[in-house]
Amino acid sequence: MLTDSQIEAWLREDVGHHDVTNQVPGETTGRLVAKESGIAAGLNAASAVFDYLGVDCEGAIEDGDSIAAGDTVLSVSGAARDVLRGERVAVNVAGHASGIATKTQKAVAKADSVADDVRIAGTRKTTPGLRGIEKRAVVAGGGDTHRLDLSHMVMVKDNHVAEMGMDGAIEHVRERVSFATKIEVEVETPADAPRAAEAGADIVLLDNMTPAEVSEAVDALPAETVAEASGGIAVADVPDYARTGVDIISMGALTHSAPTLDYSFRTG
Amino acid sequence: MLTDSQIEAWLREDVGHHDVTNQVPGETTGRLVAKESGIAAGLNAASAVFDYLGVDCEGAIEDGDSIAAGDTVLSVSGAARDVLRGERVAVNVAGHASGIATKTQKAVAKADSVADDVRIAGTRKTTPGLRGIEKRAVVAGGGDTHRLDLSHMVMVKDNHVAEMGMDGAIEHVRERVSFATKIEVEVETPADAPRAAEAGADIVLLDNMTPAEVSEAVDALPAETVAEASGGIAVADVPDYARTGVDIISMGALTHSAPTLDYSFRTG
Amino acid sequence: MLTDSQIEAWLREDVGHHDVTNQVPGETTGRLVAKESGIAAGLNAASAVFDYLGVDCEGAIEDGDSIAAGDTVLSVSGAARDVLRGERVAVNVAGHASGIATKTQKAVAKADSVADDVRIAGTRKTTPGLRGIEKRAVVAGGGDTHRLDLSHMVMVKDNHVAEMGMDGAIEHVRERVSFATKIEVEVETPADAPRAAEAGADIVLLDNMTPAEVSEAVDALPAETVAEASGGIAVADVPDYARTGVDIISMGALTHSAPTLDYSFRTG
Amino acid sequence: MLTDSQIEAWLREDVGHHDVTNQVPGETTGRLVAKESGIAAGLNAASAVFDYLGVDCEGAIEDGDSIAAGDTVLSVSGAARDVLRGERVAVNVAGHASGIATKTQKAVAKADSVADDVRIAGTRKTTPGLRGIEKRAVVAGGGDTHRLDLSHMVMVKDNHVAEMGMDGAIEHVRERVSFATKIEVEVETPADAPRAAEAGADIVLLDNMTPAEVSEAVDALPAETVAEASGGIAVADVPDYARTGVDIISMGALTHSAPTLDYSFRTG
Amino acid sequence: MLTDSQIEAWLREDVGHHDVTNQVPGETTGRLVAKESGIAAGLNAASAVFDYLGVDCEGAIEDGDSIAAGDTVLSVSGAARDVLRGERVAVNVAGHASGIATKTQKAVAKADSVADDVRIAGTRKTTPGLRGIEKRAVVAGGGDTHRLDLSHMVMVKDNHVAEMGMDGAIEHVRERVSFATKIEVEVETPADAPRAAEAGADIVLLDNMTPAEVSEAVDALPAETVAEASGGIAVADVPDYARTGVDIISMGALTHSAPTLDYSFRTG
Amino acid sequence: MLTDSQIEAWLREDVGHHDVTNQVPGETTGRLVAKESGIAAGLNAASAVFDYLGVDCEGAIEDGDSIAAGDTVLSVSGAARDVLRGERVAVNVAGHASGIATKTQKAVAKADSVADDVRIAGTRKTTPGLRGIEKRAVVAGGGDTHRLDLSHMVMVKDNHVAEMGMDGAIEHVRERVSFATKIEVEVETPADAPRAAEAGADIVLLDNMTPAEVSEAVDALPAETVAEASGGIAVADVPDYARTGVDIISMGALTHSAPTLDYSFRTG
Repeated sequence: MLTDSQIEAWLREDVGHHDVTNQVPGETTGRLVAKESGIAAGLNAASAVFDYLGVDCEGAIEDGDSIAAGDTVLSVSGAARDVLRGERVAVNVAGHASGIATKTQKAVAKADSVADDVRIAGTRKTTPGLRGIEKRAVVAGGGDTHRLDLSHMVMVKDNHVAEMGMDGAIEHVRERVSFATKIEVEVETPADAPRAAEAGADIVLLDNMTPAEVSEAVDALPAETVAEASGGIAVADVPDYARTGVDIISMGALTHSAPTLDYSFRTG
Repeated sequence: MLTDSQIEAWLREDVGHHDVTNQVPGETTGRLVAKESGIAAGLNAASAVFDYLGVDCEGAIEDGDSIAAGDTVLSVSGAARDVLRGERVAVNVAGHASGIATKTQKAVAKADSVADDVRIAGTRKTTPGLRGIEKRAVVAGGGDTHRLDLSHMVMVKDNHVAEMGMDGAIEHVRERVSFATKIEVEVETPADAPRAAEAGADIVLLDNMTPAEVSEAVDALPAETVAEASGGIAVADVPDYARTGVDIISMGALTHSAPTLDYSFRTG
Repeated sequence: MLTDSQIEAWLREDVGHHDVTNQVPGETTGRLVAKESGIAAGLNAASAVFDYLGVDCEGAIEDGDSIAAGDTVLSVSGAARDVLRGERVAVNVAGHASGIATKTQKAVAKADSVADDVRIAGTRKTTPGLRGIEKRAVVAGGGDTHRLDLSHMVMVKDNHVAEMGMDGAIEHVRERVSFATKIEVEVETPADAPRAAEAGADIVLLDNMTPAEVSEAVDALPAETVAEASGGIAVADVPDYARTGVDIISMGALTHSAPTLDYSFRTG
Repeated sequence: MLTDSQIEAWLREDVGHHDVTNQVPGETTGRLVAKESGIAAGLNAASAVFDYLGVDCEGAIEDGDSIAAGDTVLSVSGAARDVLRGERVAVNVAGHASGIATKTQKAVAKADSVADDVRIAGTRKTTPGLRGIEKRAVVAGGGDTHRLDLSHMVMVKDNHVAEMGMDGAIEHVRERVSFATKIEVEVETPADAPRAAEAGADIVLLDNMTPAEVSEAVDALPAETVAEASGGIAVADVPDYARTGVDIISMGALTHSAPTLDYSFRTG
Repeated sequence: MLTDSQIEAWLREDVGHHDVTNQVPGETTGRLVAKESGIAAGLNAASAVFDYLGVDCEGAIEDGDSIAAGDTVLSVSGAARDVLRGERVAVNVAGHASGIATKTQKAVAKADSVADDVRIAGTRKTTPGLRGIEKRAVVAGGGDTHRLDLSHMVMVKDNHVAEMGMDGAIEHVRERVSFATKIEVEVETPADAPRAAEAGADIVLLDNMTPAEVSEAVDALPAETVAEASGGIAVADVPDYARTGVDIISMGALTHSAPTLDYSFRTG
Repeated sequence: MLTDSQIEAWLREDVGHHDVTNQVPGETTGRLVAKESGIAAGLNAASAVFDYLGVDCEGAIEDGDSIAAGDTVLSVSGAARDVLRGERVAVNVAGHASGIATKTQKAVAKADSVADDVRIAGTRKTTPGLRGIEKRAVVAGGGDTHRLDLSHMVMVKDNHVAEMGMDGAIEHVRERVSFATKIEVEVETPADAPRAAEAGADIVLLDNMTPAEVSEAVDALPAETVAEASGGIAVADVPDYARTGVDIISMGALTHSAPTLDYSFRTG
């Protein structure tokens, strides 16, 4: 969840010790306006910035809504000084999150155009300090958060398997992990996929495979095992992977390489 | 500056309450390796993550250096558990900052190819929580930080001018601002540029103008006034603006829309 | 994970502004010694307290080890002033966590005496500020963490079912939850248990049922669905529940009502 | 005092990055209800949790009041999402503090049944992070906080006496301590008690003595010196110690080993 | 900007774990009253303290206003307990800041009595933790903040010049500094002043010079270069320096050695 | 106690996002040197600043030592960049605390010249954020901390007495306060002093009285009651008050109006 301490840090880094420009008396209103179309996200965070400053905040648009250029996503009113202090931070966080949601939605649309049940998921490749906001932006774009942190789901990596063997590595983890936690196993070849499933993987991560290899792995897996394709997959690659029958396509680029969605803040 | 509290927040959001996978006994070594070429940045931050965890850290590469795919930028050694905990955060922060440095360097190269004295600058459109890291990444890429926060330089905006007139708005600010602080004035038309300079602007911001308009404004300005072009300028647009004789080309996209630079972390 | 900020808060609340008693020159050594037998936990946290103060710290005992009265679990050496400042906080955190581990181990032993595969689990009924330490103490005692936070596993509660029906409530959640997250459904009667499983529950929580009701519910559940008994179960009740064939017995008392394990700190 | 930062940490550890279950639209009401009788404490903290979340909060019961099973101690109303986020933390803190108050009250009642002027006091053996809340819970149960932190009162320990002699140790402290601070001296034998008083102790701590020894020490002390019995005293032992004429009976178990008081939170 | 975290730290250090005196039921009002004449500052901070505590706060006086003994600068109303908790911190911060503003105003008045255009400025010699409040207090007193932090303006020091020569040192900095940042160069002799200006200094700092030396340096500087006199200048010395024609007189004593302005807080 | 978080805040406010001047490669040494004579204080805090930055730090001088102009109080060595970052903050905190210690020592010397047993004490009128450092500086100057925070000692104020009568107000507090806490009662007339003592005050605060009134009050008090004179007492007034036989003279000016002690930091 987004905390006051985090918002405080965002404002502090942007305001500094003595901001002469914004020393304006009186009250004002303002609107956060989209300058291009996309999917809204981060609006809760933008609102929270104004709340921290004691500025009233209202929004007709919610995270996950489609927006068009010109749409007002947030309306605020309060002391001019505080509105002006919050404006840049609000634009930055909303633009960042909405950019992620918009990129996610593009990947989702591509996947949906060729397959019914495939999900687009984020990864742990998020911007430091913004894990929660970026994960929720992926959801706003129609995607799946994937694991939220190291404690959320266990991942058996290739080096674990190299050291203890497939069965050994999975057994090692099963003894240590809660019943509340799923186990995912990373495999490097299609042949390893059914071996991981047999050893007890809830999800098999098909790492850095071509669509053809993913397809081969998916065919070899039992129905109840979730198959995830991952590793440098771009939005343009989504249809090829979606056609393989894989359940999940995860993409670091959703969070680490999404361009911002352009917003402006208009006062008065 | 980067503080321990910030690093702590980055680690806490990625680790969670009980990370079973990384409960590994013994010591290990690791390397942060570039998977593509670009400009290094954020390496101090990545080192600081490992320092916080008590992991030894050494680097032959410094922020601002050119790197090629396969280059090791950081070598670490310490308790396996701590190395594994730091790895993802270190990759994320280095990738994010290096992506910005790399994008900046591309814009700088384009500018340098057509003009001698033009600088590429960032803006306040940074990712919340990462202002300092992103500004220093712009510098690593050969760019200029522009103002670091609201208190660093005063900006007279179009709405100030609308309200008080050009001379009035600048006079208003001059009475309130320290001798240590520069004054920049935003203008919407080439004709306003020399009026701002005459009224005392140290820098004139030519907002959302075409290269032709920027050129006209620059010609009208006295030599000692710095001219800055800004407003939705993409890397591809840089040469056209650089040819105008403008001093500064500032680009929000350097920080809000730079794709990550791809790094991997290899243990053992 | 335990952060420096948290340790700082612990020390600050115990030391105050000017601690005259501990203003002692020179160096000293000290030992954290168990005064009764039990299961060690919280030793990483106790070590981290001394680390924060710059006191060297070594331990032969690890979290999860059985200890007897008289065992030294941690040895420290450093500036007398800093050793004395850390002592009380170290005893308090180790005693608190070890008390939880010891109580957990008693419940585990009782369960193991009558059934092979049942696990004892904690709940979210933890002491505010100590979630991670208490969850890891449950693990040290041989227990299962259960869900670490609201985001770790989804819980469909009776009020959700009341509102949307069993199928509706589970469907509602499935549409919103990540593939990485398990779904647990709370039921109030044995008859509802198989309905929850059929609707897609990974785990069925048998809430506030007698052992006989739990037994009935377990028999009605498919093999692959995990069954959890919960609701005011005391250590003495564990065998009766363990005999039902339930997979998980979760007990708030492990964390909210465990007496401390008695440690003393001896200097010199 | 309880700060927003602390409440934030409590909520953050329980909510995580993306809590699907509590994503409920609309408003709701809720009540914190006692499931067993005891003494209320921690209600200010529980209220503060809801305040932080922007949920309205009203309470007819105050810390220190006796409550019976079924009593509503706090009523809240606000956004369903925020009410649900605060509920578990509020129950946990109120249960923890009320458990301490209830245990304290039992000890107080036992003491009052045999003596007029004896007080039951807590110690510094509190749960890390909860010093203030636990001290105030002891007060709610009719007890005495004892020293709040190392800076509140000076304690001359047996090792100080061993090193410098009784007079030397007390003199050493008197030279360093403020007139605003009391001096307590720990003694191991009844014979040392009057020596400590003579040397200037405001309070003499009779450490790990039997009731007979405490009685002997109390008889040997001047009337104006406060006598405190301490060291592993359980609630059942209170009458024996109370009969000795000692002024203070301090018990670590009040804070480190009190079972929770059972509360539930009911929405709607 | 002043953050909630900072206010929290101020209150926490003054209140402690259990403040018996202020446990007063009911509501009260209160007024912050000046006991001597001077210039008001820090009132925003004092208000923010009461805001944090949920106490209503209104002020007729603003930072920078002249006040006389007996003037009410802030009126509050709220829960008696919270008003009493905030009172001491509010008095302390307002007194500290107003003392700085008052001392600044005295220096400004002395300067204005002999010269038209000279400014009195603060330095970086501020009280740790209070940079922003003290800088804004200097402004309230009619002074100039000078540089707010190391990143605000670059200072070329005598040791840089010793190492690289005047031209080398300034060139070194110009290559690294943003166009948004001014460059100040410290010189030790009047003869070095014009050399610094020629090499590109925006401001020349005349360090530890007599008024006669300052005068000589000022005469040798071009009109567009700002001249600053600094180094142990007391309020009594201001006229002598002001007469030299220097632009800026900076004084560490404004912030590090200003006596408090006396306020009292009256309840009821 | 001084925490890393506080040091972090001090450095962050002075450094900002990008400090070009201090970007110096290599190692350096430095010394904190007194420029005038006085009493050292705050050196632990100055050391802690360098420790946080990873700079080695050694000191021959301790808090409380007399120092002369030219004395080196701290020697450091480390990365040039980090030494330069810490320098200003270290000078500021050491100067602030040593100024307080020096002023305290002057008052102590004046008191000692006319009376044997009178102590000079600080008050709660400290600079927000620096309570502990200022209290310890008072001690370094030979003074007494007085109460450290509201929870350390109870103060019965004139408005409590007005409301409940002298006996009622003291009785009210005695019922609520720990045996570990002293009770001080503020009186406005000499005649009230013995009444307060009789009612159970450990200390009687003679508020805003002339030396003659203080003398009268002291004569009327029993020997075991501590008498404190307070209220706008300046260093010059100390002998007159010290001659009255009062035990404690407390002075807000020690902390709120002490000029800094001048230090410089010399590198290389």
